[in-house]
Amino acid sequence: MPTDVASLTREECWELLKREEFGRLAYTLDGEAAIVPINYAVDDGRLVFRTAQGSKLSAVLRGGTVAFEIDDIGSEWASSVIVRGSAAELPEEEARWADQLRLRPWIRSEKQHVVAITPSEMSGLRFRMHRPWMSIYPQD
Amino acid sequence: MPTDVASLTREECWELLKREEFGRLAYTLDGEAAIVPINYAVDDGRLVFRTAQGSKLSAVLRGGTVAFEIDDIGSEWASSVIVRGSAAELPEEEARWADQLRLRPWIRSEKQHVVAITPSEMSGLRFRMHRPWMSIYPQD
Repeated sequence: MPTDVASLTREECWELLKREEFGRLAYTLDGEAAIVPINYAVDDGRLVFRTAQGSKLSAVLRGGTVAFEIDDIGSEWASSVIVRGSAAELPEEEARWADQLRLRPWIRSEKQHVVAITPSEMSGLRFRMHRPWMSIYPQD
Repeated sequence: MPTDVASLTREECWELLKREEFGRLAYTLDGEAAIVPINYAVDDGRLVFRTAQGSKLSAVLRGGTVAFEIDDIGSEWASSVIVRGSAAELPEEEARWADQLRLRPWIRSEKQHVVAITPSEMSGLRFRMHRPWMSIYPQD
């Protein structure tokens, strides 16, 4: 591994997962890859998100492995965490707890179902950015 | 659809795809969902990225549909574009053209293979953010 790429420890992965609240969920739908951006929260070692009834809900609950990604892109360093695991809908009683979490959807819409992903694999990378062309643009 | 969510036109999707250069690729690996962040460029109606030999390359070339997501998160509005399509490795001669593209990996590493995704479906959303809690933090 080049010296400008470093693996994140499991603890660092969790730290980043707790800090962010927006990621992308990949799942299979009729055997094909699908991806969707979601708001999520970390709760008791799981990633919890709300969703409406629909193909996303059906697909993620079908028992297969889902994958989830977050990233944090800075000007010199970027980090990305990838989680794989199984998804299950929370029973109504437990789902109500989700309102106590930092589970704040960015869009107002009806999303009645609460799904929890239990990670089976987790990996993270932190890498130095090589974007020499950025120096010709004003920096943020 | 709530009034604070709007579909992007195909043209707006392409605009955003051309403006960004970092997205997430979802694919299936042994029937399970996988996701990976990638640098990409738009070339002649395709999304082109570099990759090393490995499971990602094998999986995306196995002929199935891959999915790709980019997003642009602002303080009041966010946009997300999702592309589905098939992936194919470019032949060596054509791959050399990739060096002429704005295909600038953010990490230095050996990525000899150039893959092009030809979109079969594309959709984009622009949504107003509802993050009242943001107002208690200093804004960027």
